[in-house]
Amino acid sequence: MTEFGLIDHIRTLCETLPTAGFEGIGDDCAVLPIGHDEALVFTTDLLCEGVHFLRTATPPGELGGKSLAVNLSDVASMGARPVATLLSLALPADATGEWAQAFTEGYCAASERYGTALVGGDTTGSESGITISVTAIGRAPLAHLKRRSAARIGDHIFTTGRLGGSAVGLRDLLAGQLDTQAAVLHRNPVPQIEEGIWLGRRMEVHAMMDLSDGLGSDIRHIMEQSHVGAAIDLDRIPRADGADLQTALGGGEDYQLLFTAEAAQAEKLARDFERDFGRPLYDVGRITDVNSKVPAQPVWLQNGIPQSVDFMGFEHF
Amino acid sequence: MTEFGLIDHIRTLCETLPTAGFEGIGDDCAVLPIGHDEALVFTTDLLCEGVHFLRTATPPGELGGKSLAVNLSDVASMGARPVATLLSLALPADATGEWAQAFTEGYCAASERYGTALVGGDTTGSESGITISVTAIGRAPLAHLKRRSAARIGDHIFTTGRLGGSAVGLRDLLAGQLDTQAAVLHRNPVPQIEEGIWLGRRMEVHAMMDLSDGLGSDIRHIMEQSHVGAAIDLDRIPRADGADLQTALGGGEDYQLLFTAEAAQAEKLARDFERDFGRPLYDVGRITDVNSKVPAQPVWLQNGIPQSVDFMGFEHF
Repeated sequence: MTEFGLIDHIRTLCETLPTAGFEGIGDDCAVLPIGHDEALVFTTDLLCEGVHFLRTATPPGELGGKSLAVNLSDVASMGARPVATLLSLALPADATGEWAQAFTEGYCAASERYGTALVGGDTTGSESGITISVTAIGRAPLAHLKRRSAARIGDHIFTTGRLGGSAVGLRDLLAGQLDTQAAVLHRNPVPQIEEGIWLGRRMEVHAMMDLSDGLGSDIRHIMEQSHVGAAIDLDRIPRADGADLQTALGGGEDYQLLFTAEAAQAEKLARDFERDFGRPLYDVGRITDVNSKVPAQPVWLQNGIPQSVDFMGFEHF
Repeated sequence: MTEFGLIDHIRTLCETLPTAGFEGIGDDCAVLPIGHDEALVFTTDLLCEGVHFLRTATPPGELGGKSLAVNLSDVASMGARPVATLLSLALPADATGEWAQAFTEGYCAASERYGTALVGGDTTGSESGITISVTAIGRAPLAHLKRRSAARIGDHIFTTGRLGGSAVGLRDLLAGQLDTQAAVLHRNPVPQIEEGIWLGRRMEVHAMMDLSDGLGSDIRHIMEQSHVGAAIDLDRIPRADGADLQTALGGGEDYQLLFTAEAAQAEKLARDFERDFGRPLYDVGRITDVNSKVPAQPVWLQNGIPQSVDFMGFEHF
């Protein structure tokens, strides 16, 4: 079974369970309305040694910050403000001392930076590698929450930043170059928290998610959940320094936001964003009707002409 | 650093973080008041292959049920009703197929049994063993929540069931006897959900927690958080079949509730519990003033005479 096969299996099993007032699986976070037009959102991520990080390539303090950041990114991608996290650590004997101390210091320093409480967790021994599990809780007015299912035909598709930088950094790390700008960025991703909350308040923003697996893969989640197609303009993909097109579209862990916005408001939205954040939004394509021939695939355009390429993102197994 | 040393380190680091309206670390769950005199509670637990379970000794379906049950037990121990969970799985290549399918089927069947939604999660590959992370969310009237810090001098100390059965079952499993009654119980613990909610409604119940590490160790959390002492009557410890006193006090994973109740109401409480659940409460001791000589130690009584023994619980590293 692939990762997404297992998720589908779980989704089918869940169909008969009570909902307890939650919205179902399908977004970056689960949503629980709590009255007064407010909602809490919940997300959780695992980081495993040897899969998501190498102990030799990532100082524990930076890994602590990254473990937090990737979860807060999921909260931000809903338009919510992250408020608290729970942190669990499975530690082999050689990581319970200095490593654990530096990791938790990095985690708590990042919590301070992003304004989140640490409200619980679990620690245990491990017979093998280090495993880190973080659950993040966010809060937002219900009306500000953005879902993957809200894209509409004609929407412009935006990203909040250049893409592929994290993948370039990972390549540097694996080549033993630990100190390049890209390698530092890969180890220290910045969740787009204020950007996400700002976009949450804009009613012309429809669907939103964060880019964790790469635009080429992630846009499909919006297409699938919104029952729409997408045409992506390859000439307009903003590439990070050193990233070719393949890397920009297929490289994961950029943690920029990917969202769609009402065409009539798109230009003003981009102007306002640049005014408030001092950097541009990147308009990379349009939401279209479903492509009846290849419904799961966006149409890739170069000079306006469809290309027959496939930019796959990252699957975890 | 020991497990509790690391937790203390994290607690110190957290002191300068915002609280975001949450009560601090120290109970089985974190508590977030959400208005209308209601609160949500949150807890999370890791289960690691080779530490918490052996793949050869635990069928995946049963492990799925247990992963849920141990988290719901933490929610129940606050007097709250569990409403939803998030489930994360790190799976080595040889566990992504049938094993994962059976595990998630067991998890969802147990979710149905206990009435909880499955609202999110994460799946990833693992370079080593299986790791399972569950976060559980509960809901309760604020006034019904029980905390470890609420014990008062003179309170009776109760458990909701006999102790040591899970440790006897673990011993059987490790000896290759997979089908004894105790081994089945060890693999299929039953969270005391209705019992916890029932006790939550009783104002004469003061402090409460669940027995995951063993009474000998767990009672110290109530002592520490409530700034009290405890005298435990060794003659009154209810032992599971096959459990000696050491096993009943030091064996973990019984997932019975441990709580304290106002002396004047204790007898009526026990009568009402037996009427509603068809089984007794066990009155095992009294909350006392702090023992100024050995503040971290309960006094162990046999025929009313203090004994110089130490019943240590389980530490995870």
